[in-house]
Amino acid sequence: MRQTVCIQGLGFVGSAMAIACARAGANRTEGPWFTVIGIDLPNAQGRLRIDALNRGEFPFASTDTTLIAETSAAVQAGNLTATDDASTLSQADVVVVDVPLDIDFAAATPALVLQPFERAIHTIGEHAKPGALVIIETTVPPGTCERIVQPILKEWATKRKSLPFMLAHSYERVMPGEHYLESITAFWRAYAGADEQAADACKGFLSKVIDTERFPLKRLSSPTASETAKVLENAYRAANIAFINEWGQFAEKANVDLYEVIDAIRVRPTHNNIRQPGFGVGGYCLTKDPEFAAIAARDLLGIGPQPFPMSELAMKINREMPLHPLALLEQRFTSLRGKRIALAGISYRQDVADTRYSPSQTFVEEAERKGAIVSCFDPLVAHWEEMNRLVGFDFAQCPDVDAVVFAVPHREFRLIDAATWLAGRTPVIVDGNDSLTNEQRASFHQAGCEVLSVGRGTAIERRPT
Amino acid sequence: MRQTVCIQGLGFVGSAMAIACARAGANRTEGPWFTVIGIDLPNAQGRLRIDALNRGEFPFASTDTTLIAETSAAVQAGNLTATDDASTLSQADVVVVDVPLDIDFAAATPALVLQPFERAIHTIGEHAKPGALVIIETTVPPGTCERIVQPILKEWATKRKSLPFMLAHSYERVMPGEHYLESITAFWRAYAGADEQAADACKGFLSKVIDTERFPLKRLSSPTASETAKVLENAYRAANIAFINEWGQFAEKANVDLYEVIDAIRVRPTHNNIRQPGFGVGGYCLTKDPEFAAIAARDLLGIGPQPFPMSELAMKINREMPLHPLALLEQRFTSLRGKRIALAGISYRQDVADTRYSPSQTFVEEAERKGAIVSCFDPLVAHWEEMNRLVGFDFAQCPDVDAVVFAVPHREFRLIDAATWLAGRTPVIVDGNDSLTNEQRASFHQAGCEVLSVGRGTAIERRPT
Repeated sequence: MRQTVCIQGLGFVGSAMAIACARAGANRTEGPWFTVIGIDLPNAQGRLRIDALNRGEFPFASTDTTLIAETSAAVQAGNLTATDDASTLSQADVVVVDVPLDIDFAAATPALVLQPFERAIHTIGEHAKPGALVIIETTVPPGTCERIVQPILKEWATKRKSLPFMLAHSYERVMPGEHYLESITAFWRAYAGADEQAADACKGFLSKVIDTERFPLKRLSSPTASETAKVLENAYRAANIAFINEWGQFAEKANVDLYEVIDAIRVRPTHNNIRQPGFGVGGYCLTKDPEFAAIAARDLLGIGPQPFPMSELAMKINREMPLHPLALLEQRFTSLRGKRIALAGISYRQDVADTRYSPSQTFVEEAERKGAIVSCFDPLVAHWEEMNRLVGFDFAQCPDVDAVVFAVPHREFRLIDAATWLAGRTPVIVDGNDSLTNEQRASFHQAGCEVLSVGRGTAIERRPT
Repeated sequence: MRQTVCIQGLGFVGSAMAIACARAGANRTEGPWFTVIGIDLPNAQGRLRIDALNRGEFPFASTDTTLIAETSAAVQAGNLTATDDASTLSQADVVVVDVPLDIDFAAATPALVLQPFERAIHTIGEHAKPGALVIIETTVPPGTCERIVQPILKEWATKRKSLPFMLAHSYERVMPGEHYLESITAFWRAYAGADEQAADACKGFLSKVIDTERFPLKRLSSPTASETAKVLENAYRAANIAFINEWGQFAEKANVDLYEVIDAIRVRPTHNNIRQPGFGVGGYCLTKDPEFAAIAARDLLGIGPQPFPMSELAMKINREMPLHPLALLEQRFTSLRGKRIALAGISYRQDVADTRYSPSQTFVEEAERKGAIVSCFDPLVAHWEEMNRLVGFDFAQCPDVDAVVFAVPHREFRLIDAATWLAGRTPVIVDGNDSLTNEQRASFHQAGCEVLSVGRGTAIERRPT
């Protein structure tokens, strides 16, 4: 008989995980392995996601055509539904938790926002089938499974006088984009169980969803180890971005093209992860995950404050990165007061529409604080939710501004023909994120624009290409 | 007719480069491409190296049997000699500079020790064949070729009324060890010329020494770019080592095995460069190169002080790393006064005898300052030059000490059978650098020793394996 999997939380991860589970084994003679029920909260956002899935539509815009097709196929096949009724958890043999766990950075010291996550675990304890396997997929502070989730689940099992739940942790490495679904089904996974039985059950489940022949699973010794692995991965990435920032600024002054240098370095297998200079770090993960271990040490594990000097410095540098291209403009104009700046690109990443924690927000806020008049454009975003402002003046021609700042390397920007687009205007051009090609920057220069680049000396821009 | 290549400076890089050049084309019908002359200073160290090469012996202990055989073959073939007579530079079509350029870290602010390097360039200017190609292979502060080397060479060409020299920069990525010679001949290379002609000449030369079909050359826009690439490579490595240090210390307290976690992370191609916790950073390169760019900005390029917060913090953390295993012991013993510590491993790296800037030195100095009595052992080193002390008490049995600290993962340490070796003694065992296997640590624990590890929680050590 088919097992039932409940996915709790239908955000960017949970929605894709629901499809991955629903399509697992779909090409077997016996049909798919699982009946999948997506669960979200009974509020406006939750309803939008639930209704989309029940119509066979993936609830987020995506360029992954396979994901879109598989969503529709799953609903047609009848083994995928979504609901806001938590009591359906009673059918679950497996519960996958994809509920967010946030950090309040506005607090005096960064603090966990635990309540929504804890509520979700209580809901599972109250409703889920006795003995069910509960897999935490959310990125959480190390110690969360052992110190928060396990006590809640045990409390409910005692209260219900039922079989204890099996608890495991296995973090996702989802990357929205063209290979969104495959970033779950065809990628490496680590996992750990609160005990051997839970670990074995988790392994059995993941082996059905993931192509473990090509991407063997890695079992870790404890949920705390698995939780640590996830936050370490993102802290490592954040630190490498912060590290290269100072070298980009050095290169600008030393008249070196750091992108060229990095190309030469990346051929070394020991150095192929070195990052490029850029406009800043945004999105939901790299901006918060590196903080989780320090919070865990202080508030969760009881081991006292632990210093994370490199990770902390990296987060600070990354937060301030967008101020550097602004400083380039301020040096150029002496004062930003009254200067009209067109910002091209407000999402946190190329070719995605996600604006959460976008570095462009930091840039706009500081530019406006300094008296600049900023208008924004992004080919993928019409309304900037976090800033509550409309985006997308007519970008077909160069706007009448003092400076145009390219903040994101969206595909569309690399198609601009400088001379035609400028139509005689000569704003200062800032390539803030390797958003333009060498040829484009040279064309802007030839058309009379001053060109400033993050990570490249200006003398470089003046060389003939 | 064969070209003549002079290698100036016969240290770890220059000596190996001399062999690489001498053996280039050796299997052609026409015989090798180059006549190679190794040049070093007329002092005791220089004479030792020169005499060794002239006898057909590589001047440093090496496990690379190919390198040893090729040294002897080159001398027998008659196209490799060594001398302290700088006037032989007059025969050179190509001069490769492998003279050290050091930093004085004892100065109030770290300062370049330029004189020996500048003297070497003057010697070339005075003696080398007019129009010769001069390739700087030494790791130098960005700007050195343009601001220091080029003016000296021009001055001499003017004085001698001769053809100008061609100046290029191409840094080495030599790694002493089993594939020492191949780390030159079969590895990627970047290069840059002061002008097109010099760049082309450098490319022509390197193409004869390096297997450029498998490892294509990468031309950079300027010597400053090439100089920046080298120091950035080593700064990147140093920063990644420093980054993981804080996670190792967290793991110890959170009872996580960070080595296990890192194994799970490294499968990700974007994360395969993540480093492991360890005992510290030593050797000639990672301890100084990250400082070169800051010095260059201030003292060489005239662009004013540039902040390198991540690189500077990384160097500080790396210097202090060996104090952490010492702190573990101090916590254990309350005071180190009178405690007898056996330190196993004093070289800066596993399976090499090089003790320059070894982290073990920091450990010993601080331990003795705190009143401990430290004895040292290393299977590859008999005399510790930098500390001027004999190394290598009898390590066949566990010495009569309070603690044994394993600082380097030398092959020999992993062959120790704990119970036999201890022979009833039960010192505290510190695995400071993943020097022991999981099984060895478990055996030490079973034999009654307390086992402390860098990067691993002690509870982990107490689990049955």
